[in-house]
Amino acid sequence: MDTNEIEKSKKNRLKVLEDMGKSIYSQIEKGENPYLTLPVRGLSNVKYNEESRMITLGSGLSRRYFLNVGHVRKFIQTTAMAAVSRELIKSDKHTSLRSAFYQVRRTIPGTKIDVVDDQTETNKAIEDLELITDLTREQLNINANKNGSVAGEVVIEDRGDVIDWSKLGSGGWAIPSNVEEIIFRKVDAKFVLYFEKSTMFERANEDKAWKKLHCVIMSSQGQATRGIRRLLQRLHEEQGLPVYILVDFDPWGVYIYSAIKFGSIALAHASDRLALPDAKFLGLMEKDIERYGLKRHLIKFKDVDTSRLKQIKNYDWFKNNKAWQEELSKMEKLQAKVELDAFTAKGLSFMTEEYIPNKIKEKDFLD
Amino acid sequence: MDTNEIEKSKKNRLKVLEDMGKSIYSQIEKGENPYLTLPVRGLSNVKYNEESRMITLGSGLSRRYFLNVGHVRKFIQTTAMAAVSRELIKSDKHTSLRSAFYQVRRTIPGTKIDVVDDQTETNKAIEDLELITDLTREQLNINANKNGSVAGEVVIEDRGDVIDWSKLGSGGWAIPSNVEEIIFRKVDAKFVLYFEKSTMFERANEDKAWKKLHCVIMSSQGQATRGIRRLLQRLHEEQGLPVYILVDFDPWGVYIYSAIKFGSIALAHASDRLALPDAKFLGLMEKDIERYGLKRHLIKFKDVDTSRLKQIKNYDWFKNNKAWQEELSKMEKLQAKVELDAFTAKGLSFMTEEYIPNKIKEKDFLD
Repeated sequence: MDTNEIEKSKKNRLKVLEDMGKSIYSQIEKGENPYLTLPVRGLSNVKYNEESRMITLGSGLSRRYFLNVGHVRKFIQTTAMAAVSRELIKSDKHTSLRSAFYQVRRTIPGTKIDVVDDQTETNKAIEDLELITDLTREQLNINANKNGSVAGEVVIEDRGDVIDWSKLGSGGWAIPSNVEEIIFRKVDAKFVLYFEKSTMFERANEDKAWKKLHCVIMSSQGQATRGIRRLLQRLHEEQGLPVYILVDFDPWGVYIYSAIKFGSIALAHASDRLALPDAKFLGLMEKDIERYGLKRHLIKFKDVDTSRLKQIKNYDWFKNNKAWQEELSKMEKLQAKVELDAFTAKGLSFMTEEYIPNKIKEKDFLD
Repeated sequence: MDTNEIEKSKKNRLKVLEDMGKSIYSQIEKGENPYLTLPVRGLSNVKYNEESRMITLGSGLSRRYFLNVGHVRKFIQTTAMAAVSRELIKSDKHTSLRSAFYQVRRTIPGTKIDVVDDQTETNKAIEDLELITDLTREQLNINANKNGSVAGEVVIEDRGDVIDWSKLGSGGWAIPSNVEEIIFRKVDAKFVLYFEKSTMFERANEDKAWKKLHCVIMSSQGQATRGIRRLLQRLHEEQGLPVYILVDFDPWGVYIYSAIKFGSIALAHASDRLALPDAKFLGLMEKDIERYGLKRHLIKFKDVDTSRLKQIKNYDWFKNNKAWQEELSKMEKLQAKVELDAFTAKGLSFMTEEYIPNKIKEKDFLD
């Protein structure tokens, strides 16, 4: 994506929203009951697509009518949100979910009825707008929370600033919530490493592991933010970098990987722009416990770990995957977790100097 | 702080730890029962110091003996942690609380006893070491979690990289957990603004509010991390910048301000290096609701808000502060909160273009 493409994307996004408005307008002119068409959300229409390897929405469609007591409130909220989003895109400004709620909130003139009473309503309206327009929240200029940092031999351009990810000291670049308009100027890396924990990032960054391993390192804390997921996806799709996910050996770690790779049920409609079916699981795996002498650092499962594991093992995207079923069965049998931090017992740089290079050299990952 | 001072600090810190070891050694040589002296922790010895305006430890001291069944375990854990910390400082490496636990964890030769069983033990040992050595965790090269970003016309040097906080696009610089060794090269700002929410930071950063207001902007999400608190303190103490805290009008917002300004009970021993008694509360205040027409955005208190407010009102550092008692009483009477996000209803840039400049011009803050 370059400056021209950013400008073009802006025009396209405005056009989509304006066409939506025009379509309603012409329905009114023709004396029809105005409606919006959108895919059915909710579990009944969420499916794991074996082919694309993503959690996606099915083909079910629904119509939302203006002249329908059950629909009118949502119809108005969705169009009000479309108007806010159009203003945002036009003015090159971004807002948050919470602020979007305040922007839409107002009393309908001549009534005592508010357009929205609660943020859950604007959140839904934004999701509906994503479905109707096939644009993501980020493309509608509505941002999620930001978190996380990145480092590596990559030069980007963002809002006119040229930023070298290899020259940002111990902090790294703070990943914004919206990475749509980042332009990659130079990418000198062979892969991307995503760590579950920010402390791992700091340790690896202190060693300039990104230089030694010739990669990009990234982390937030726990679940990856939308900004991070999209950045991983862009580095993979546009720059051809393999993405490796490094998490604790426990159900929570596996789920962090799962959400990055396959997407999630709640965001099934956004999998196109967020999921990363090619992401690889670099560990920890059960066999690493033996190989790297981590047995003494096993931490017994609590009930909540056991039941989470059971859920994960049953997910459609793991159920028919032999390698994953084996791995998760081993975890189930062990009834214990191991944290990445345990590598520290073997030396502060063991993970980046031994574990990761071995894994990548031996192509020892789960898919 | 410059490169020489960083080197000097390293030597000093090593000396403090080595002196601790030598003192134990000489006690052994003299045939004494080795001991460590440290301030009493815990509520009984935590006080709000009216003069320094910080939550600090009282003067109570305790001794921890090696030859004492009740003390020996903690004695060993503390000295083991001191050894780990010395290695870290010597090798210019940093570790996390979790990793420090794994580094200390081992079986005492010839026994079946582990030095530590659980991270709570190493956490305590680190706090004890802070008290014994009068060094912070960060100075002992043990880092907390990182979070948050910063932007502004400031140039720093960190690990040999020169970083311009005004040229980092929409992300900003990711604030590391440890900011001890940052060197300020150029600080072109009149004050620092800390936002409670990262979405506020993104909005303000998008408008380059730091340029228009001639300030540094910073945020994490909710409670400020140790890295942020220390960075605020350093910008204030070394660079003479006033620090303003901008939070929601609710007990949780007030507590974010309170922890930055006065320190906290749990970290009373570290107030010297973390608290910022000169920090100012820039709002939201009760009177802003009227002035800025935010009345319609009041959100009724839940029980948990009411009881948190009661606690905060009773804290020693607010109890004898007339202005704060008045403000908190107004909040109590109102039984409702207002979020900073509500300003968005008045325009996306209202907060940085109207509210903040007014507040600062009129010196309208609480202290």
